Amino acid sequence: MKKEIPKPSLARLPKYYQVVITYLNNKRGKYISSSYLSKCLNIDDSQIRRDLMYIEIGGIPRVGYDAEELRDVLAEYLGYFNLNEAVLVGVGNLGSALAQYGGFEKYGLSIAALFDNDKDKIGKFVGNLKINNSNELDEIVQKFNIKIGIIATPAAHAQKVAEKMVASGIKAIWNFAPARLNLQEDIFIQDENLAENFSFISHYLKETVDKKNK
Amino acid sequence: MKKEIPKPSLARLPKYYQVVITYLNNKRGKYISSSYLSKCLNIDDSQIRRDLMYIEIGGIPRVGYDAEELRDVLAEYLGYFNLNEAVLVGVGNLGSALAQYGGFEKYGLSIAALFDNDKDKIGKFVGNLKINNSNELDEIVQKFNIKIGIIATPAAHAQKVAEKMVASGIKAIWNFAPARLNLQEDIFIQDENLAENFSFISHYLKETVDKKNK
Repeated sequence: MKKEIPKPSLARLPKYYQVVITYLNNKRGKYISSSYLSKCLNIDDSQIRRDLMYIEIGGIPRVGYDAEELRDVLAEYLGYFNLNEAVLVGVGNLGSALAQYGGFEKYGLSIAALFDNDKDKIGKFVGNLKINNSNELDEIVQKFNIKIGIIATPAAHAQKVAEKMVASGIKAIWNFAPARLNLQEDIFIQDENLAENFSFISHYLKETVDKKNK
Repeated sequence: MKKEIPKPSLARLPKYYQVVITYLNNKRGKYISSSYLSKCLNIDDSQIRRDLMYIEIGGIPRVGYDAEELRDVLAEYLGYFNLNEAVLVGVGNLGSALAQYGGFEKYGLSIAALFDNDKDKIGKFVGNLKINNSNELDEIVQKFNIKIGIIATPAAHAQKVAEKMVASGIKAIWNFAPARLNLQEDIFIQDENLAENFSFISHYLKETVDKKNK
């Protein structure tokens, strides 16, 4: 049985992918070593080798990994070859930013339809995408067999929107609203709480800069 | 010597903080247990207790942690009591979204000034904040002794903006541009690569939903 990859290891794989892509684009060579990855990402060498064991790619001792093979195995493992369509609900500033964010497609994500319940927004366009009425969510999700829902509504609406998504057949939710969702267990939820991530910075500043000033 | 907290543990602390806040707001009781936190967050009980050892709070066996104490110790540890001011460069959709994102302040972050180099934007307002000319960055960072820079520019401008920030005295950078920054070692960089985080979803869908359909 294949061992399930721990979440922190999975979180690092896209970083390796980025480095390999740049490495190949710059024609740095046929092989890429874990120590090169380590230097670029400031991640421990041995950690990188352990992570890459999960994706079942073999390196050559003192040479490294075949860079093209590593790229393809990572892309396959991470599902980048499957272009996944998503619906996005909540076309405020954040929703608009996400809808127009360049670079999702190379990670296999295509935002296929936008929804809002604000009459002033419905019918307008963000880039090439029309903003649909939220009550059409069900129809569009089912028609195009979409599995991913992105929530960019205010916190107060997030739970209701999530339930509507699940009822229409969505299997994975990328939640940008600062609210914790409560859904049936087989739904995958990826929370993106921007304020929480700021904690790394505030803790760092408290530990270093503030102390120096005292 | 205090043992340094591992990054995954640090990443979980804001989640505990959120749960405790909700717990106290709903007047659920004086004590909060690690098993309650575990249930809310789907994080292993023993992991939670290990994480909380780093912040040096003692629980009562079979009762839990004093909820108010836990809230305060977490807030102190995470630096939420120090209100940190930040400058934000790049007022596109994502920058505007961040400037207006409710809920940063309770995590100790206040966005104090916005910058862009687009003449059509300079002088306009996002919420209460005026968009300043990027060439005033230096002056404002120094005048207000600001330590945090948020980058929301296109990837191609990120490195240059980061260097300008560091030259004016910024110590920590929150980078939303999909570009890897190369800066002197004592600068703290928190990368927020939205597309990378999508990998969790694409991998999940590949492993579960797609397989069921085959």
